Amino acid sequence: MPQLIIKGLEQDKVKQISKPLVDELQQIIGCPRDYFTLEVVSSIFIMDGEERQITPFVQVNWFDRGQAVQDQVAAAICRHLQQAGCPQVETFFVVLEENRYYENQNHY
Amino acid sequence: MPQLIIKGLEQDKVKQISKPLVDELQQIIGCPRDYFTLEVVSSIFIMDGEERQITPFVQVNWFDRGQAVQDQVAAAICRHLQQAGCPQVETFFVVLEENRYYENQNHY
Amino acid sequence: MPQLIIKGLEQDKVKQISKPLVDELQQIIGCPRDYFTLEVVSSIFIMDGEERQITPFVQVNWFDRGQAVQDQVAAAICRHLQQAGCPQVETFFVVLEENRYYENQNHY
Repeated sequence: MPQLIIKGLEQDKVKQISKPLVDELQQIIGCPRDYFTLEVVSSIFIMDGEERQITPFVQVNWFDRGQAVQDQVAAAICRHLQQAGCPQVETFFVVLEENRYYENQNHY
Repeated sequence: MPQLIIKGLEQDKVKQISKPLVDELQQIIGCPRDYFTLEVVSSIFIMDGEERQITPFVQVNWFDRGQAVQDQVAAAICRHLQQAGCPQVETFFVVLEENRYYENQNHY
Repeated sequence: MPQLIIKGLEQDKVKQISKPLVDELQQIIGCPRDYFTLEVVSSIFIMDGEERQITPFVQVNWFDRGQAVQDQVAAAICRHLQQAGCPQVETFFVVLEENRYYENQNHY
């Protein structure tokens, strides 16, 4: 954690932004870089009977770090995706609870 | 948003229901149709050592719109999937929070 | 439900653990075995510009059953994955709400 779950963005673009994005998130959040996972989801999106491209969106699963840090993380994600050629980006945060998150048999 | 994440249903069936389903959800919820995403997840399901078919289920990520609207959305999803040949359907809602959902750098 | 969403673990290993794991979870939770789904997610994970293996992790979507039962479920998942050759495992629980979970048109 944090887990970034990325939909609607090609694998190559995720590869391209992965290093600078995690470099920056690591600074903002203050956690080791190997805590991060960047997941490229291979789902298909459908509208009106046809497969279609969607506005890329990023779900971040993490422990709550407050609105200010969250704002900075969203801004960093947005900037890096825009630099990779996505004019529009949606990012949302899902808060996980520490007593529900286990490393092996022990929760946080 | 709303994001409909569909598991256990073939892509062709999702294509078939996508237009009439969104037509109806748009009426119930009162939001533009391009807010909707229908995601067909390509996961594999396992039970007792073998791949198997599951009862289709639909996760809806959205902002809370109250129990009455939610009931109508679940009923519409159920009806359209049943018309597409699924006798049994499970639908569940995950509430996203507005101050955690960003369009570009700004949250709702 | 419970839904086990498994990332970073090969399909064959999930097949291998699926029966004994559900046997045990069924005892701990006290619900029929056909309530369980084990989903193998086929996402790709990226770090520093390259695809990479991740520490396997399991998301459990379920109704809250209290900390003690949850601890036992996490321990069982951890043990079975370790027996399948994963030294490190992360498991986290996402609580679904009964009035937001529908079988066909009726919520719990």
